[in-house]
Amino acid sequence: MLKNRILAEKPSEEELKSRLKAAREKLAVQQMQIKEHKLPVLVLLEGWGTSGKGSTIGQVIRNIDPRFFKVASMEKMREEDGRKPFLWRYFAEIPEAGKFVFMDSGWMDEVTRHRLQGTMDDETYDMRIASIRRFERQLTDNGYLVMKFFLHISEKEQKKRINALSKDIDTKWRVNDTDKWQNKHYEKCFGIFDRYLDATDSPSVPWYVIDAVSKKWAELQVLEILTEGIDIAMQNRSVAVPILQNVFPLQKMPKLSEISLQNKTIGDEAYKEELKRLQDHLRDLHNRLYRKRIPVIIAYEGWDAAGKGGNIKRITEALDPRGYEVHPIASPEPKEKARHYLWRFFTRLPRTGHIAIFDRTWYGRVMVERLEGFCSENDWKRAYNEINEFEKELADWGAVIIKFWVHIDKETQLERFTLRQNTPEKQWKITEEDWRNREKWDVYENAIDEMIQKTSTTYAPWHILESVDKKYARIKALKIVIEELEKVL
Amino acid sequence: MLKNRILAEKPSEEELKSRLKAAREKLAVQQMQIKEHKLPVLVLLEGWGTSGKGSTIGQVIRNIDPRFFKVASMEKMREEDGRKPFLWRYFAEIPEAGKFVFMDSGWMDEVTRHRLQGTMDDETYDMRIASIRRFERQLTDNGYLVMKFFLHISEKEQKKRINALSKDIDTKWRVNDTDKWQNKHYEKCFGIFDRYLDATDSPSVPWYVIDAVSKKWAELQVLEILTEGIDIAMQNRSVAVPILQNVFPLQKMPKLSEISLQNKTIGDEAYKEELKRLQDHLRDLHNRLYRKRIPVIIAYEGWDAAGKGGNIKRITEALDPRGYEVHPIASPEPKEKARHYLWRFFTRLPRTGHIAIFDRTWYGRVMVERLEGFCSENDWKRAYNEINEFEKELADWGAVIIKFWVHIDKETQLERFTLRQNTPEKQWKITEEDWRNREKWDVYENAIDEMIQKTSTTYAPWHILESVDKKYARIKALKIVIEELEKVL
Repeated sequence: MLKNRILAEKPSEEELKSRLKAAREKLAVQQMQIKEHKLPVLVLLEGWGTSGKGSTIGQVIRNIDPRFFKVASMEKMREEDGRKPFLWRYFAEIPEAGKFVFMDSGWMDEVTRHRLQGTMDDETYDMRIASIRRFERQLTDNGYLVMKFFLHISEKEQKKRINALSKDIDTKWRVNDTDKWQNKHYEKCFGIFDRYLDATDSPSVPWYVIDAVSKKWAELQVLEILTEGIDIAMQNRSVAVPILQNVFPLQKMPKLSEISLQNKTIGDEAYKEELKRLQDHLRDLHNRLYRKRIPVIIAYEGWDAAGKGGNIKRITEALDPRGYEVHPIASPEPKEKARHYLWRFFTRLPRTGHIAIFDRTWYGRVMVERLEGFCSENDWKRAYNEINEFEKELADWGAVIIKFWVHIDKETQLERFTLRQNTPEKQWKITEEDWRNREKWDVYENAIDEMIQKTSTTYAPWHILESVDKKYARIKALKIVIEELEKVL
Repeated sequence: MLKNRILAEKPSEEELKSRLKAAREKLAVQQMQIKEHKLPVLVLLEGWGTSGKGSTIGQVIRNIDPRFFKVASMEKMREEDGRKPFLWRYFAEIPEAGKFVFMDSGWMDEVTRHRLQGTMDDETYDMRIASIRRFERQLTDNGYLVMKFFLHISEKEQKKRINALSKDIDTKWRVNDTDKWQNKHYEKCFGIFDRYLDATDSPSVPWYVIDAVSKKWAELQVLEILTEGIDIAMQNRSVAVPILQNVFPLQKMPKLSEISLQNKTIGDEAYKEELKRLQDHLRDLHNRLYRKRIPVIIAYEGWDAAGKGGNIKRITEALDPRGYEVHPIASPEPKEKARHYLWRFFTRLPRTGHIAIFDRTWYGRVMVERLEGFCSENDWKRAYNEINEFEKELADWGAVIIKFWVHIDKETQLERFTLRQNTPEKQWKITEEDWRNREKWDVYENAIDEMIQKTSTTYAPWHILESVDKKYARIKALKIVIEELEKVL
């Protein structure tokens, strides 16, 4: 990308002026169109130290109403960031529909910085590149416009800028050690930047290399490319996307109809004993997890009235409250709805050493959202792969992922619904919607079968909890959690 | 792509049967929809020897009316193919809008075969991969659906098939030396196939690896993925595409208004002498070109009545008629219009050692097609890069590319139009359209300036022929042709 690239020649001052005016006006108009079209726009500015990333952003945003954009300065990592998956801090900052986010350095900066410092081996680098390609593709597939700019200056120009800034007391602070280091090792940086740009250049999220030798000229290039990109993206709302083939290792799973619910019971006495023994064991494991800083994600899905709540309770009873969190997942809030559907789960991930329990999950995409038409067919068909990619990200981070399907049969559900209806203190637990969903049992069962077949990866398999006897299901859940945790401890 | 890939498990016989029936019926319906939507569908089947590429195609096409598809068997290279650019034989076979082409082995087979035989070095391999990525991207950007399947079988399965086929006199012919060689060097082939699949997998043209252990199961996988791909492509007609940044080295060129047409004249005597001398020289060069098998492409564009015809004549007078061809380019025929706009130029390329002269060219895309609205804004904006890529392909093949803009001013055109109008034997040369185009001189001039700025690559630069004095322009053209040819001889 950097090698062989001939940058467009800077126009005359006069032309520059008139084109700048036109581009600024265009962007000012587009901010309203973006809102109308509900287009989320993520603009990433990467580049050499002192190439003017910040000031370019500063210029570009002058044409946008402050309500419509946010600038995210990503350079400084906080302690929190180090305890989350690689892409977490960037994913957290993605714009909502109809708005801009300008990112001042992002995932490229992080990866190439580690490469340059020699703190990232080849294997991790390749893993990061794969993550980034999936991340950028997922954003685009989900309707985001992602525009990536690399501000390019020569070794000589960089040196000149560093010297000029360093001389003046007022601007000295703007030169940091990385800038100086880059300039001393310009060729090495060039090679690593170039390789990164090549590896992450794709037809739908291409890189644009900007000649940053002059501020106004850099601004013009960014504005013209950005406004053109916006025009194109606005023409392409709700484009369907190829459904990629699965590339993740899958476990063979039974269909729900093949699962016997008979004789999956436990006596009261045995239950009490087992429960105590297992909870004690889990308590101990939780401490060790915490010290080893292993993140754990437990995902619960299941039929209405299958006993998810009570099951979760038996897990959390054994846990130190400072080290876990339960996330009940209802329908998304407006801010969540306006973003990538995985965003609200990504932002709820635990820190390393902590446990996050999700009461209903991202699998809503391929169940309720699919069956109620809350997303398009292309959306939910793509989601199996997107979810496998999401969980791969978590697994690569080192997380233990345990997914439970809490299973009962149709008759058991009817009994429990009826009991709830007839027991005043339980009536809040049953709604009209539960009855309506019950009528769609068969289509749900089909969707659940497909989900379990397509997302039982070896790194994040589904476990079925037979829950006609809720006590049996609780003991089984505890055993599975313990077993999975012991594998990594 | 092959490593780590877990193939979907073969369903039960019963399920297979019912899904096959459904998929076949779906394809039968889709063939009509494809016609309506004018979608061109290119299906590429690659895979191991004896994996059943041919028989899979044979099964799939049984559901399509013979008027709507063509099977292209690409395995055998003809002598002709070796004298054309790498992608020529594949580009020539692309489907027209509303039809299918099934390709039995294609560009993957050719490249990996050379790699396996050790007849392609790393540099050429990288160049081929870049060509292929551009080719596939261009097809998709221009509205093609390209579906790539790789039929995968294990070493053991391949051996079993080779043995079974070889035993029977009736099927013996179906096993060739390549199949046997592949099986002996299975691991090596696996590595090279895998690397190729990875390098050419893209979000918009992904690879699909098919478990080809059973014929019916392979057919089902291909049918289901193909019909799903068609559904998605039909939703996405006329999608706009990001405009990629130029990555090719450009030459600095003047604007038309900066070109002086004054004093660009030659006296009659000097003209005659020069003409003879230059034509003799060119005649000699043509022979040497022929022996060295260098292909030459001379492209003429220019204002109406600028003198293209007479200019071309002075070139061809010096050439052996067996070694050149002139292609006058009018508006495209229906078969041409139904394909990628570069197709009719790709198929008119010369053989190595020959000269092709184009009287008007592929640059129509960014002039008349742009200004008359024959293509979308996204189409012509994309075309600068597409054309640079096309010419890069020719340059990589070893072609000399000479592009002439035959230039006059507005007044000179008016004089010549008037003369034509008033001279009975010249009246055929002037039409109403010429007058209409003349009225749009200024918008044309803008478009031509943009074209010359954006497509004067170092490997295929534009040359301006000042043609107020036609004789001057002819001598200049001859000199440029001679100069460019001498560089490679």
